[in-house]
Order: sequence, then C-alpha cells, then structure tokens
Amino acid sequence: MFEKLDLTKTIDDKAYDASLPLLKERLGILQRTLRDQNIPTIIIIEGWNAAGITMSTHEIIQSLDPRGFTLHATDKPTDEERAHSFMWRFWVKTPALGRIGIFARSWYSRALAEKLSRVSWKKLLKDEIISINNFERQLSDSGAIIIKFFLHISKEEQKIRLLERERNPLTAWLVTPRIWDFHHHYETYLPIIDEFIEHTDTDYAPWHVIEATDQKYTIFKVYSYLVKTLEKMLEKRAAAPSGERSGKGKSRTITGFPKTTVQRKSSAGSSHSKEECQRILDSLQIEMLELHYLLFKRKIPFIIVFEGWDAAGKGGNITRLARHMNPLGYHVLPVSAPNDYEKNHHYLWRFIRHFPKAGHVAIFDRSWYGRVLVERVEGLCAEPEWQRAYQEINEMEQDYVASSGGGIIKFWLEIDKDEQLKRFRQREEDPLKQYKITEDDWKNREKWNVYEPAVNDMLARTSTRHAPWVVIESDEKWYARVKTLKNVIRHAGDLL
Amino acid sequence: MFEKLDLTKTIDDKAYDASLPLLKERLGILQRTLRDQNIPTIIIIEGWNAAGITMSTHEIIQSLDPRGFTLHATDKPTDEERAHSFMWRFWVKTPALGRIGIFARSWYSRALAEKLSRVSWKKLLKDEIISINNFERQLSDSGAIIIKFFLHISKEEQKIRLLERERNPLTAWLVTPRIWDFHHHYETYLPIIDEFIEHTDTDYAPWHVIEATDQKYTIFKVYSYLVKTLEKMLEKRAAAPSGERSGKGKSRTITGFPKTTVQRKSSAGSSHSKEECQRILDSLQIEMLELHYLLFKRKIPFIIVFEGWDAAGKGGNITRLARHMNPLGYHVLPVSAPNDYEKNHHYLWRFIRHFPKAGHVAIFDRSWYGRVLVERVEGLCAEPEWQRAYQEINEMEQDYVASSGGGIIKFWLEIDKDEQLKRFRQREEDPLKQYKITEDDWKNREKWNVYEPAVNDMLARTSTRHAPWVVIESDEKWYARVKTLKNVIRHAGDLL
Repeated sequence: MFEKLDLTKTIDDKAYDASLPLLKERLGILQRTLRDQNIPTIIIIEGWNAAGITMSTHEIIQSLDPRGFTLHATDKPTDEERAHSFMWRFWVKTPALGRIGIFARSWYSRALAEKLSRVSWKKLLKDEIISINNFERQLSDSGAIIIKFFLHISKEEQKIRLLERERNPLTAWLVTPRIWDFHHHYETYLPIIDEFIEHTDTDYAPWHVIEATDQKYTIFKVYSYLVKTLEKMLEKRAAAPSGERSGKGKSRTITGFPKTTVQRKSSAGSSHSKEECQRILDSLQIEMLELHYLLFKRKIPFIIVFEGWDAAGKGGNITRLARHMNPLGYHVLPVSAPNDYEKNHHYLWRFIRHFPKAGHVAIFDRSWYGRVLVERVEGLCAEPEWQRAYQEINEMEQDYVASSGGGIIKFWLEIDKDEQLKRFRQREEDPLKQYKITEDDWKNREKWNVYEPAVNDMLARTSTRHAPWVVIESDEKWYARVKTLKNVIRHAGDLL
Repeated sequence: MFEKLDLTKTIDDKAYDASLPLLKERLGILQRTLRDQNIPTIIIIEGWNAAGITMSTHEIIQSLDPRGFTLHATDKPTDEERAHSFMWRFWVKTPALGRIGIFARSWYSRALAEKLSRVSWKKLLKDEIISINNFERQLSDSGAIIIKFFLHISKEEQKIRLLERERNPLTAWLVTPRIWDFHHHYETYLPIIDEFIEHTDTDYAPWHVIEATDQKYTIFKVYSYLVKTLEKMLEKRAAAPSGERSGKGKSRTITGFPKTTVQRKSSAGSSHSKEECQRILDSLQIEMLELHYLLFKRKIPFIIVFEGWDAAGKGGNITRLARHMNPLGYHVLPVSAPNDYEKNHHYLWRFIRHFPKAGHVAIFDRSWYGRVLVERVEGLCAEPEWQRAYQEINEMEQDYVASSGGGIIKFWLEIDKDEQLKRFRQREEDPLKQYKITEDDWKNREKWNVYEPAVNDMLARTSTRHAPWVVIESDEKWYARVKTLKNVIRHAGDLL
C-alpha cells in the first residue's frame, strides 16, 4: 500500500485558503449532528514519528465544540493500565453516546511498541489483528463511527524533521534515543505497518493513509476525509431502517445456533450432612486462602461470575468463598440495572471498567450475562443485539484471558422452582431478610419459563475452554457452597 | 494519649460469642439506614504494621451488603496519583450519597510515608494537619459521617507478629525491609503519630484508638465503636432540623463578610485596532507556546478558570489562548449542570477529578464557582451551603497550589448589559451560531441584577494570592483576548 503513495503531493495556498474554512464549518455542524443523533465517534490519528500527529490533532479540535469531545494522547501505559489487560485502557476510554473520542496514537501504536519486541511480528499480526478487529467491530455494531488516519512520510523526511526538532531547545528533549532507534529501523517497520494496516482496514473501521510531507496538504486531507466519511456514514444511517441506525438492526453474527437444552439439575442428591459440608468447607477455605496469596504474588488476575435464579444463594456462596480471602486482594461487584451514565456506553463498558488488575480477584454478583438474560427476556435490547452478544462476550472473555494471563470461571446456580418459592416465603417472614425480597423477584418468578430458553442458550453458547460455565445444584445450600469452592480452587490452581 | 492505654486488654470468649452476632446484625441494619438517608460514610482503619488492619477490615465487611460499600486499600500511589496533588487521590474516592467508603490505611499513613522523610515532622504536623482537617471538615459539612480507628500495639508485640509472618512461606514476602525499618524506629514514630492523632481528633471526625493486642478484643472494639458512633450520629441527625441533616443548615464558617462591591469595568477604552491587537496576540501566542513547553517539561500543572456573563466571550478567549498550545498538554473542560452521578458527590468532587496532572494545563469554561453564582442565585443550594463555599473553595485552591507546585488563575469576563443584548441578537441571526443561544440565556439575563451581588461577593472573597481573580473588560473582544493571554503568561511565568 505504501508503495503506491506519492509523497510529493502538495496543495496550493489558494485552494487551501479557499477550502479549509468551509471544511471547518462543516465539521462543526457534523459534530452537532452526531451529538443530536447520539452517535459515539472515534477518530484515530496514527503515523510515523514527526509525521504531524500532534499538528493534525490540533487542527481538528479547532473546529470542535470542547463540550463534545475528549482527546486521548496515547503514550506509555500508566502502571494501573499495565496491571490490566491490553485492551482495558482503551475500552474504558471509548466515547459515550453523542461524544467524539480523538486518539492521538492508539491501540495500533501501543501494539507495535509493546508486543513487537516480545514476539515475532507474524504472531503479532495474527493475535493483535484479531483482537483489534473484534474490538472495533463490536463498537461499530453498537452504533459507533470509527475513522482511522495514518500519516505517512519517508525516512528522509522524518530525519529532516527530527533534526529540526533537536535543534530547537524547546523540543530537543522530546527527541529521545528510542525515537532515533525507531527511525533507524524505518525499513524494518514499513512492511509490518503496511500489513498491520491492510488487515485492520475493514468496512466498519476504514483506514485513510495520508501522504504527510506537505503540512497544508496533510491538514486538508485529514479534514476532507473526515468530513466526507462522516457525511457518507450519516447518509447511510438516515437511509437505513431506524433499528439499524443504533446498531439494533445489525445481526452480522447470528450463526443459526440450534435450539439448545442443557442438562441442569437443581439437586445433586448429596448425602453429606450440613456438619460434614461445613468441615469440608473449612478446609477448602484454607486452601483458597493460600491460593489467593499465590495469585496475588504471581500477579494473576481472576474473575468469578455468579448468575442464577433469584434466591438461588449467590450471596451466601460469595460469602463462603471469600470467608478467608484477604479483603485487599478481591472485590465483590454487585450488578444491578445500569444508571444513565452507564447506559450511554457500550453494554460491556461498565463491566470491563471493573475488571481486576494483576493479582486481584473480582467476584461478579450478576454480570454482563444480563444482556442475554434479563435484557433479552424483558426486551431491553433488540433481538439482533442479544443474538450478537454471545459472540461478543466470547471474544471479550477470550481476549481478557489471553492478554492478562488470568482466568474466568462462571457459575450458574440452579434451584427448583418450588425451592425458590420456599425461600421467598422464608425471606418474607424474617424481618432481617425482608429487604432482600422485592416485587421484582415475584415478577421474575412468573417469567421462569421465558427465562429457561435464555439460560439454556447462554450456557450452551458461552461455555468455552478459557471461560467455562459450571452449573451448581443449589437446592442443598451446603453442597452448593462446597462445589463452588472446589471449582474455583481447581480452575485458579490451573493458572499457577 | 498512647501512654494511657492498657495494651493487655482482652475479652473473654463467652462475652465475645454473645455480643458479636448482635453487633454484626446491628451494623447491617445501620448500613441500610445510612443508605435510606443518603448519608455518605467514611471508615478509616489505621494502625501500626501487623496491628490487624486487614483483619479488622475483613471482619467489618462480613456484615455489610457489598452493593453499598467500596474498600480502598491505600498503598503507594500509582503514577497517575503521583502526578496529581496529594489529596486528589482521596478526593476522587470519597463515597457517593448513601455509600460507605472503607479505607484500609488512608491519607494519614500516606502523609507519614511520603512527607515525613522529606521535611521535619514539625512542619508535617502543621501543613498536613491543616490540609487533612479542612478536607474532613468539608466532607462532614456536606453531610458525610467520618469514623477513624487507630490500631495500637507495642513494639514487642509487633516484633512477634512480624517474625511470625516471616516464618510463614505464604506471608514472608510481605514483610519487606521497609517494614522492619519502620519497626526499628517505633520509638521515633510513636510521639509523631501521637501528636498527629491528637491534632486531627475533631468533633466532626473523631479518632478511636484501640488496644489491638488481643485479636478478639480488637474486633469487638472496632464493631462496638462503629455501631455506637453510627447510632449516636444518626440520633443526632434525627433530632436536628431537617436542613442540618444534609449539612444544609450548618453554617460553621460564615464569618460576616461586609457587603462587597468590586470595581468592574466592561470597557478598557482601548484604542488599539483589531489589527494591532491581532499582531500583539500573534506574538503572545508564540510566547504561550514556549511557556507551555516549559510547564510540561518542568511538570508544573496550571489551572485557568473562565467565568463571566453569557456571551462575554469565554469560548473565543479560550480558542485564542490555546491557539498554539500543544493539544496533548492541555484540556478544556466545559462545565454544565451536574448529572445524577455527579450530584451524588460533594460539589467539588466533579471538578477535582479533572484537575490537571503534573505538566498539564486545564482550562475550565465555567467552574466550581457555579456554587456561589448560579446555585446561589437559583436557590439550587441552601444559603449556609454557598456561604460556606467561599472558605471551602479558598482552602481547596490553596491546598492544590501548595501541594502540586502548580498555579491557578481565574478570569471574570465583564461586559455591559447592552453589549450582551447586541451579542444575543447577533447569535440569533446567524444560523451557525443559533445553537449557542438558548432560552436559559435570556432567563439569566433577566436576573442580571440578582447576579451582580453574587459576582461581587465571589470576586471579593475568593481572590487570593495563590489564586487571583482578574477582571477582563470584554466589550472589545480583541482587547479582552490580549489581556487574558498577557495575564496567563505572567502568572504561569512566575511558576517557572
């Protein structure tokens, strides 16, 4: 791709002076349209060192209302970012509905800088491209617009600019040995970047490679691509049926799963007494305590997800699980309906934000599986949205496990419908537990049969090798707690 | 204080087993009351190394609903935290309404660890105590409950525990040379901590020092103090008039300011032409570019606040100011009404979160001064609240400047009422500017005379040496932009 480019392109001053004010005005108007239509927009500016990333960013934001955009200067990760999986720091920065996120350098630069030295670039191209394409496709499917620029200059031009910067006392300190090193290996990186761009140039997140030798030409090109692409995309949306505009109609990834049924028993018919279980539990908790120390010491993060029928015992299970764990090394995340702030983001955003850092354990009391359970059953999202979610969740979990070196285990707590009724009544009678039972619980109970296929589909489609589901027969509380703890210990132990 | 303590205190098993379940139950109920009454609660657990901070934290959270608390394990700051002022990392973690924030170690430990080595401890006691007491008083005034524990053990007991931990292969790596070093200087720290506690033991945030030799006694004491203090505070609130419950009636800090008038002119009668101003502006912008590099290089943060009448030209001023600044080194923060999420926090919280890190410039388009302008005028907060705000803001700004080494400058953009009318009409007529003028602007205009005394009070009471107000005569736009830029350059230049 780079070979075909003509790096001598320029724009004459007259044409520039005539067109730029108009482009700026149009971009300003487009920003308001994007805001009014609640569309999140991601603009990525990548390129060689000294190719004009800062300058182009600077120019773009001149036309934008500062109330509607956030600029992210992507640089070396902070130590908090380093303690999370690679995509985490970008996930948390994805723009809310109607906002523009501008990334001056992005996951592309960081993937090259952080991954390339460690593994061969063929491997990079394989893993990172999959991960990045999934990320961008998911954002696009949820309604985001993604536009990517790569500013291209020749090695000679780069050298001239770096030397210029070195001569200026204000900027000299910015030209680090690392930047020179990158310059000296220009020819090594060229084909890598070329292939990287080629494989991430998708219909949902296209690249615009810009010949960036002439400064005015660069600005003109960035502006005109930006305006043209946004106008084209807005037109396309206006023409699409209303559902598709917000990503609600896209069903790119429905792959015609067969109707699923999963064997789920609510009772294991355990013959252990409560006392026996308590004894086993005591010793498992000590094991868990030791395991927790080792996870912490070896900086391995671990995610434990609890889903299940109301009153199936998620809370009690979590308490027993954490009984001896060091409170500084885990956190429990109780999940309820998203607030307005969270609703303005991709549905995975509010969970990924709380993913554990290296060495920490996160216990989710309900989770992102709400997408394919309550949101599906209650019609809170459209069918293509929850249909797509199975694949999105699988990709997200796999990416997390692969890039963090951590683990995910998911528990479905199964109880019998009669057992649930018994527990509801107990809660109603106990003044200290009354707060635990609400009208919603009774309403959900009425929809038991509608939840059944949703639970089956979830278990069948999202139980993967890297993030398996384990069904916990929970009619006998004590048995359930023992089985949960045993599974956590086995799965986490495998990570050590 | 430490001398009076009896470190041999214990509790017998029978009393412990009888009382603890009751205390746990009461704490659970108290949590729900705090939630229902929208009270934010801060629980701080401090103490010597190995005194049982983790263990006590662990015990407390057993009784709490995980949906309502967040545990903060305060340790070495992350590099993002280090790039901000000392209190920033704690401000951003203050709990929302109805939530409990538990700090296992807190600003106390960090002040000792980070400040003590650098300056003499007498100086520490002076500066840090003022800063911490202000912080806690402000939170308390806004309705928060603050409870602080210090777990005390003898040097001998500490030694025994550290050796025990070293013998256990699971915990040995946690006993670092730094911890031993701290142990060896136990006698040095004892009087420092004693004085630190004494001077931060306030009626709004009292300390409970606990003899922590016996584990069960410690747990019992933490629980019973916690339950008793919370019950007492809730009773006090129930008895107080409704305003005071939420801090709306407290007016601790009204100090009877005289009625103020501040000389504000809307025109400087500048005879410079637009062209002359543009020439001056061009050269000032180059100066600003250089200054911005130096601030960045020397890691000095800088805050620029813009307030002023609607249509006074804040936006245009900001654009000219930032014309040549590197976009990666500054951000513009446009401030509008707080969203629900922000409303659940202290009114300063949503601004402090966005304070610039070392070397960065933050430009606020409107700011925390909304408290004493729109919130005062529109009755969005009670009189004691905005009366208190002058002092609170002064303290916060002074603390920021002192602890970050940065600067704050604040601009009030003054225009004539007729000039405003002219600009409103211009905006209405220009299709590209129509979006800038709303019904609210016209409504605010009607309240011009009600805003006048609020503006006067603000300028008179919050213009300080470390964070001065500068009135910008803004009838002539070009003059205004030049004066703003000149003042920024002078104030920021003084920081270098």
